[in-house]
Amino acid sequence: MIAFGGPTGQTLAMTESSKGACLVIGAGDDTGGAIANAFAREGYEACLVRRPRNGSDLDDLAEAIRAEGNIAHALPTDARDEDAMIALVEKIESEIAPIEVAVFNIGANVNFPIEDTTGRVYRKVWEMGSFAGFLLGREAAKRMAPRGRGTILFTGATASMRGGKGYSAFAGAKFALRALAQSMARELGPKNIHVAHIVVDGAIDSRFIRENVPNVDELRAADGILSPDAIAQNYVMLHNQSRTAWTHELDLRPWQENW
Amino acid sequence: MIAFGGPTGQTLAMTESSKGACLVIGAGDDTGGAIANAFAREGYEACLVRRPRNGSDLDDLAEAIRAEGNIAHALPTDARDEDAMIALVEKIESEIAPIEVAVFNIGANVNFPIEDTTGRVYRKVWEMGSFAGFLLGREAAKRMAPRGRGTILFTGATASMRGGKGYSAFAGAKFALRALAQSMARELGPKNIHVAHIVVDGAIDSRFIRENVPNVDELRAADGILSPDAIAQNYVMLHNQSRTAWTHELDLRPWQENW
Amino acid sequence: MIAFGGPTGQTLAMTESSKGACLVIGAGDDTGGAIANAFAREGYEACLVRRPRNGSDLDDLAEAIRAEGNIAHALPTDARDEDAMIALVEKIESEIAPIEVAVFNIGANVNFPIEDTTGRVYRKVWEMGSFAGFLLGREAAKRMAPRGRGTILFTGATASMRGGKGYSAFAGAKFALRALAQSMARELGPKNIHVAHIVVDGAIDSRFIRENVPNVDELRAADGILSPDAIAQNYVMLHNQSRTAWTHELDLRPWQENW
Amino acid sequence: MIAFGGPTGQTLAMTESSKGACLVIGAGDDTGGAIANAFAREGYEACLVRRPRNGSDLDDLAEAIRAEGNIAHALPTDARDEDAMIALVEKIESEIAPIEVAVFNIGANVNFPIEDTTGRVYRKVWEMGSFAGFLLGREAAKRMAPRGRGTILFTGATASMRGGKGYSAFAGAKFALRALAQSMARELGPKNIHVAHIVVDGAIDSRFIRENVPNVDELRAADGILSPDAIAQNYVMLHNQSRTAWTHELDLRPWQENW
Repeated sequence: MIAFGGPTGQTLAMTESSKGACLVIGAGDDTGGAIANAFAREGYEACLVRRPRNGSDLDDLAEAIRAEGNIAHALPTDARDEDAMIALVEKIESEIAPIEVAVFNIGANVNFPIEDTTGRVYRKVWEMGSFAGFLLGREAAKRMAPRGRGTILFTGATASMRGGKGYSAFAGAKFALRALAQSMARELGPKNIHVAHIVVDGAIDSRFIRENVPNVDELRAADGILSPDAIAQNYVMLHNQSRTAWTHELDLRPWQENW
Repeated sequence: MIAFGGPTGQTLAMTESSKGACLVIGAGDDTGGAIANAFAREGYEACLVRRPRNGSDLDDLAEAIRAEGNIAHALPTDARDEDAMIALVEKIESEIAPIEVAVFNIGANVNFPIEDTTGRVYRKVWEMGSFAGFLLGREAAKRMAPRGRGTILFTGATASMRGGKGYSAFAGAKFALRALAQSMARELGPKNIHVAHIVVDGAIDSRFIRENVPNVDELRAADGILSPDAIAQNYVMLHNQSRTAWTHELDLRPWQENW
Repeated sequence: MIAFGGPTGQTLAMTESSKGACLVIGAGDDTGGAIANAFAREGYEACLVRRPRNGSDLDDLAEAIRAEGNIAHALPTDARDEDAMIALVEKIESEIAPIEVAVFNIGANVNFPIEDTTGRVYRKVWEMGSFAGFLLGREAAKRMAPRGRGTILFTGATASMRGGKGYSAFAGAKFALRALAQSMARELGPKNIHVAHIVVDGAIDSRFIRENVPNVDELRAADGILSPDAIAQNYVMLHNQSRTAWTHELDLRPWQENW
Repeated sequence: MIAFGGPTGQTLAMTESSKGACLVIGAGDDTGGAIANAFAREGYEACLVRRPRNGSDLDDLAEAIRAEGNIAHALPTDARDEDAMIALVEKIESEIAPIEVAVFNIGANVNFPIEDTTGRVYRKVWEMGSFAGFLLGREAAKRMAPRGRGTILFTGATASMRGGKGYSAFAGAKFALRALAQSMARELGPKNIHVAHIVVDGAIDSRFIRENVPNVDELRAADGILSPDAIAQNYVMLHNQSRTAWTHELDLRPWQENW
């Protein structure tokens, strides 16, 4: 084990004995956190990324993972910044562990009438929802391809499949991310890198929903809202699939959902 | 435990302590057999169905499952026969165990130029690939709905998503089966019945392939052909998914596949 | 011109100078009638088919087409009957004109909970919505392929793309018809036969809608309901497309539609 | 008619009697040129846009349209520049004619392995293929919505539907453009603005293909390559569709195409 001063100053632990690193971009919300936690429980070093301004939330998540006896590194990074993403992956690979699993989980859900959608918003949603995913995918692929193994998982949404009213920016970003996942899967599958796209189709039991949906407790009691831990189990399952039968795309929605 | 003379004469065992029945229509080929075996290992009584003329193969499969200490019933039935399917489900429910899992796994893959496709072939492929699936789905739903639980799984194929050259009959049947799965999922999800459709996109390590693909051993050695057991694990996974995050559709293909 | 006693007894006119025959299966409702009329106006002999029990409606349609100075033949036939369909096409080809355009326009829209869907209904909807389409497609292809030209058009619906609640039978039939159209297009395109699938996504200004939708007049006044004549123009357009740029699938819906 | 000094200096003619303006972004290649020409023949003033460095090509196209007695304006503009696009639309609306038809036809087809795709390329392809389309769509919508009419057409490609190997950037841009078209169609349809997406699936008889495909003359002779004029006819057809039966999406491919 060697010491390493992470971006937010805490000492990170690199263990020889871990299964490798699981890098989660968008570890800030409930889903990303649950995914990171689930892979940490599987023995991977959770490398947690969200934008620097939310660094303290990231530290909290890292602490929670460590409290279970697992390994986590808080690595605040602007995922839309190409140089920063290259440096992030280099740091993890050289100082923490080989990236065995890379998860892209940035949402960027906005809804505006087309006439009120500014170029700034349209671009920013794409940078968060597509460009950052491309950077993660490419940098992960560069490291995984020579090793001949790895898993890259992209979180999709209802808007990955359907351009609904007011969703020109968000659906644009999610459609592009799905295109990326398909293209990478076709290219990297034969290199033994498993690329999958998970379509989360419904409300997630997240901070935003808890603060904005009045009947959220009722929904949760009825299993009527997506549980982040349940979502996370599917990410771990995808990573563990036999390579004779890999899934590229699956959807996830609550049993009660009207779709 | 009570004794019960099954259709092929052997004594079937009904146990109070099992998790219930897993009914597999199309248990004759390698995939259906592996699915039945996987659920038997999970504690379900495997109810194995294929057409009566293949009854001895069915007995062999049942024996193989029992040899592992699990429970299996050989129930040869013509799945295209409405009365026979109603009687089959009634028999299982009254004499074996409640059907907790119903799997439809009949293939019916044929390829003919449109001009050479007879009405008889077109109809038969639909009867095997769609109508039998409808009968299973409906009879299972009738039993599961009052209990408020259950899982119904349909095996799809590449031809479920794309009507390729020469596949007017086969793709017709598989498209219709996918429509059935979607329609049932939307209707039965809110009744806590999980309906899913699995798109198997590639060659399976089955008897047909072993007899017709020259380099099958090479493919298997490279994990380049779908393993029936790996497929089966996904069926069990779907049954065990948290209902806060159910999958309706996923694809399965070997890592090397060109798609 | 030669005389020929048609199935309902009237004398049919065969002209050497027509552009050929346009066979419309399902010419009974407003859409099929409008399509037949539109091709008749283009100079094709409209060969009108619906089931024999609606023979008088067919005669009315034929009269309406003739009243415009165009040619129509009422040919009541059970489109689900393979022998009858073979005989129908033989009769048209030998006694009327070569079939240049074949249109399949049978609907068969029903909605039942899965548990209440009888095997009889499920089968009948498929026979009307898929099997009859297969018979038309195959018989038309047999005649068109040796001539190296022709157009075959299939009418789809919302249920061609989505298996909604209660639509296991109807969506099953429409999905299968779409599979047929795709498969035939891939096979017959290189034989210079244009196969297309039109997804009609919305209410049509038909007798059923006029009798069941209270605000139909208001909808029509606002162009908020699909006009059969507008639909028909798209069928003619598809037939007239340059073969350097053929459309296989398009959707049609009113401007106001919520989709 | 009033005189107006256009961006490249030539005098543009504004006629009171035209049907309005047809703005074509990406009028540089053969397809965009053919579309502009087709709408000019219908009586629209063709407003031709491609990037300023290709201004002379644009002048040539404008001359060719004028040589037929129709109206064209060469308006070289960087379509990725929000301010420039706002100014372009303002100029057309105030100095030429109301925009009745807006066509987005920028391609940006590139293919790179994921590992060799630079951030610069990924971003530039999106800016050309998606962001510019968004700017056109939004600015057109702003002008059309108060008038309660208009047509906005987006050119798609095979990569709009499928993320093929090496197409992470191009498919990303085309998927996003399709999302935009869907979202705008759902929002603007009820405002009587027809938004459609045309999937061009095959090689077009364009300068690039003529210079790179050896057997292009043979293909053209056999109608085996998409004719720009044939494509253009479909754009005009979409604009002229009855609003009781609007098409949102159609595909175009040569009759011989293997798809």
